[in-house]
Amino acid sequence: MPEPIVFYDIPRKANVPSDKAWSPNTWKTRYSLNIKGLPYRTVWVEYPDIEALYKKLGVDAPSTGPTGAPYYCLPLIYDPNTKVHVSDSAAIARYLDKTYPDNPTLIPKETDALHAAFQRAFAAVFNMPKGSISWLMIPETYVRLNPASQGYFRRTREEWFGVAIEELAPRGSEKRQKHWEAVKAAFHEVAGWLQADGHEKLFFLGGETICYADVAIAAWVVWIRVTFGEDSAEWRDVLSWDEGRWGKLTEAFRRYELVDEGSPLEL
Amino acid sequence: MPEPIVFYDIPRKANVPSDKAWSPNTWKTRYSLNIKGLPYRTVWVEYPDIEALYKKLGVDAPSTGPTGAPYYCLPLIYDPNTKVHVSDSAAIARYLDKTYPDNPTLIPKETDALHAAFQRAFAAVFNMPKGSISWLMIPETYVRLNPASQGYFRRTREEWFGVAIEELAPRGSEKRQKHWEAVKAAFHEVAGWLQADGHEKLFFLGGETICYADVAIAAWVVWIRVTFGEDSAEWRDVLSWDEGRWGKLTEAFRRYELVDEGSPLEL
Repeated sequence: MPEPIVFYDIPRKANVPSDKAWSPNTWKTRYSLNIKGLPYRTVWVEYPDIEALYKKLGVDAPSTGPTGAPYYCLPLIYDPNTKVHVSDSAAIARYLDKTYPDNPTLIPKETDALHAAFQRAFAAVFNMPKGSISWLMIPETYVRLNPASQGYFRRTREEWFGVAIEELAPRGSEKRQKHWEAVKAAFHEVAGWLQADGHEKLFFLGGETICYADVAIAAWVVWIRVTFGEDSAEWRDVLSWDEGRWGKLTEAFRRYELVDEGSPLEL
Repeated sequence: MPEPIVFYDIPRKANVPSDKAWSPNTWKTRYSLNIKGLPYRTVWVEYPDIEALYKKLGVDAPSTGPTGAPYYCLPLIYDPNTKVHVSDSAAIARYLDKTYPDNPTLIPKETDALHAAFQRAFAAVFNMPKGSISWLMIPETYVRLNPASQGYFRRTREEWFGVAIEELAPRGSEKRQKHWEAVKAAFHEVAGWLQADGHEKLFFLGGETICYADVAIAAWVVWIRVTFGEDSAEWRDVLSWDEGRWGKLTEAFRRYELVDEGSPLEL
């Protein structure tokens, strides 16, 4: 059994550990680790500490922001078995497949390039990074963050979008409804890929088994579910989309939703 | 051996059959048929006859144009062995895989949904249908068509783009250079998918073997090659992109470039 991988995740307000995880990007890695069945422990990092964490570890920023400056974000893992750090959820999935080839595969080698194309398609369909799902979810996410993260989150998101978080998609507004419809349409387009052959409806993008592309979709579905809650009108609406496909996907992924108690980052 | 499939393709001016084929969308089907090693015969259809052909055969238009009206386009095949017509190159590939499963596979079942995502990604990267490659290639294509097709082609393309064909990308213009750079950048992004894992460079999107996503890329590469010619500055430029990747792809696809003499459509 390998030593536990250190998995850096962003917490939100929660009474129990299982409620702490919310970020769609880190969910991709949490699902990946759980699917591969690898031991890991979560280190919870508030937003303002992410940059300091990277610098302390001597790890380069995983990407650059809109201004070209380094952009420090999670997920990040440290694997004590190989003594390497890996950031970016897709890169982490590829790393885990290479390092632990005997555990379930996330990106079958012959689909590696198609997975890269999938990520481009997914970003195009959801019009990322500034698509409707962001307008809709950022305000809902903000109120659920710990105070330690809220200031940073507000400042950065208001810089990107040029409006106050509260103005992105106010509840009851026509704007919010429009963004919600756009999110529904985007999921519908993804559902179309799963019945491209016109006769059969695939359940997973990987065919018979889950692949990393399914993980990426499930991470956005879980974001909506844990943010609004299972009793919300929003989640009931999602369950009604595409003949219940997203509810079924949720059920298939529940077994991979382990959230350990973990520990807060100590810088 | 099955009876030859009827393959409807659009001709251009040519002294020999092998020079007739040029359309990227029908090349996808020609490559598909040749890769699967299925017998077929080409029926050459000039643009103004495409709609009449569909109506005579009683086949629905494969898509709708920008105004929502039926849009009649090729490829279209008729398989006398099953007595079915299939249009749209991806749908044709899926049909051929299902009907002739013992011949080489174009879309492995477990990549069906990823292939659909690939098509979306490819369209996004090339900003289709009105991206730079169209601005660049439409004027070059126009002058190489038979007179029977030129009037239709000019009228429809000038309606779509709102300018005269000659104004899309005049030779020597800054506009043309800008579109050429955009096409180069788009191919570069696709090349990035083939080295997504950061260590290895895949040759085919299918991994070890050609898959339909490779066919789709090769069809655009051959469009550039046969339009400008192998001795052109444009083709030499393409050969220099991405460490010669597109030249190598061309060599891998040459064995699938059979163009039979075929016969003109008789309505």
